[in-house]
Amino acid sequence: MNVLIDGHRGRQIPCDDRGFLYGESVFETIAFGDGEAPLWPLHMARLARGGAQLRLPLPETEILARECRQLLPARGRFVVRITLSAGSGGRGYWPEENTRPRRVVSYRAWPDQIDQQRRCGLRLRLSTISLCTAEPLLGLKHGNRLAQVSAARECQDSGHDEAVLLDSAGQIMEAISSNLVLVLGDRLVTHPRPAVAGVGLDWLRAEAGMDFLPLALPVGRLSECSEVLVINSVAGVRPVIAIDQHRFPIGPICRHLQSLWNAQLI
Amino acid sequence: MNVLIDGHRGRQIPCDDRGFLYGESVFETIAFGDGEAPLWPLHMARLARGGAQLRLPLPETEILARECRQLLPARGRFVVRITLSAGSGGRGYWPEENTRPRRVVSYRAWPDQIDQQRRCGLRLRLSTISLCTAEPLLGLKHGNRLAQVSAARECQDSGHDEAVLLDSAGQIMEAISSNLVLVLGDRLVTHPRPAVAGVGLDWLRAEAGMDFLPLALPVGRLSECSEVLVINSVAGVRPVIAIDQHRFPIGPICRHLQSLWNAQLI
Repeated sequence: MNVLIDGHRGRQIPCDDRGFLYGESVFETIAFGDGEAPLWPLHMARLARGGAQLRLPLPETEILARECRQLLPARGRFVVRITLSAGSGGRGYWPEENTRPRRVVSYRAWPDQIDQQRRCGLRLRLSTISLCTAEPLLGLKHGNRLAQVSAARECQDSGHDEAVLLDSAGQIMEAISSNLVLVLGDRLVTHPRPAVAGVGLDWLRAEAGMDFLPLALPVGRLSECSEVLVINSVAGVRPVIAIDQHRFPIGPICRHLQSLWNAQLI
Repeated sequence: MNVLIDGHRGRQIPCDDRGFLYGESVFETIAFGDGEAPLWPLHMARLARGGAQLRLPLPETEILARECRQLLPARGRFVVRITLSAGSGGRGYWPEENTRPRRVVSYRAWPDQIDQQRRCGLRLRLSTISLCTAEPLLGLKHGNRLAQVSAARECQDSGHDEAVLLDSAGQIMEAISSNLVLVLGDRLVTHPRPAVAGVGLDWLRAEAGMDFLPLALPVGRLSECSEVLVINSVAGVRPVIAIDQHRFPIGPICRHLQSLWNAQLI
């Protein structure tokens, strides 16, 4: 593990870190190719939103960028994780009045399965885990991720690649580690209040001019979808070929979004 | 900080611990007096429920008991925290197939304010943070506690001791670190689906024979309550003297429950 903790090489944090005690943290998982992260500004924007909401003073993004350069090999694809936790201190749930956050920057190898999944697609299940749209920190990439971990364990049990998580009203909300996009007629539909506001979707919206219709669909309408996609900032655009008994083709929308992605991103 | 990590003195954990990355952990906060924890069996029962749900294999409770004895001074009151995290490993949200949990046992001084709060009561506010009753891990004391931390920060801002958190339907659910009990006529009312199933309430129910009516009350009915109490396993039974503009007396029910508590607990 190659890690910088508050700028120093190391791999240990104090066990009174509030990220460990309460999941009081925000993080970003960022794709790097040959030392460059094309989605960097969007990741930094989301980190800033989360930091502001959790009142974690953010380090200068230039410091974070420098630490990534310091850690990463010059060539190859890697996934960097930047975690900003609330650090040590406070009294139980009551945080320190002046939070001194702890930052952890680490990276790991590019996941083997991404390229193959981009080509051949993923098999999903409907998760028994639902997500709460009333959650006040909805949309932020914070450190409270037990819903996603539980849904991932279900997938391991049943041999699926990913899962569809519903909102409390039984509507299609999100995959475990990706936003879900449903192709319904000529519209690209995605949940209006995602659990994690996806940087990959942001880029397709802002830079590639794609128009997503914010709409929560009941799960019964899956059969009307001509394509289903999962999108996240690292794995990019991947086709969904099955959700339980429903089958979906790898269609022209998927291949179009992938060509936009591949032209500029990793 | 006096800490045992997997049985060894230390204060650092690896920064790839899944408790740190995702809040993938369960924990207990346990009152000890002169080396004894009267609520120990109830804490161990909740830890076992949480561990089973999160698939964290539990250490023998005798090991945990021995580690508490090893750490704690023989005399005085202390608060022990036992954390069981999912340890290192896995691939993003996807956990290790065979989780090897990490256990952290630590203690801190008895909180100064408890004795005074038991006598004189607490001032609460209505939190803007709501809790989700549809959460699949509801009732467990797991490491995803951003709602509680956010509500605690609100209290720091507004100068309140604690807060009332509502459920998604706007009904009275819980305090930040305690269950809430409302005295309505001759009934003791508490939410049927608490975010954390309280060990203090369990004891009052099972050992002291108290009968709690599981009922979710709309916040408008606060004005009908003759007393309001906050109860947790460490601070015991504390009277609530105000929730925003509502005032409550410290009444006979509070003093009765306190006398039951003080006769056998810490």
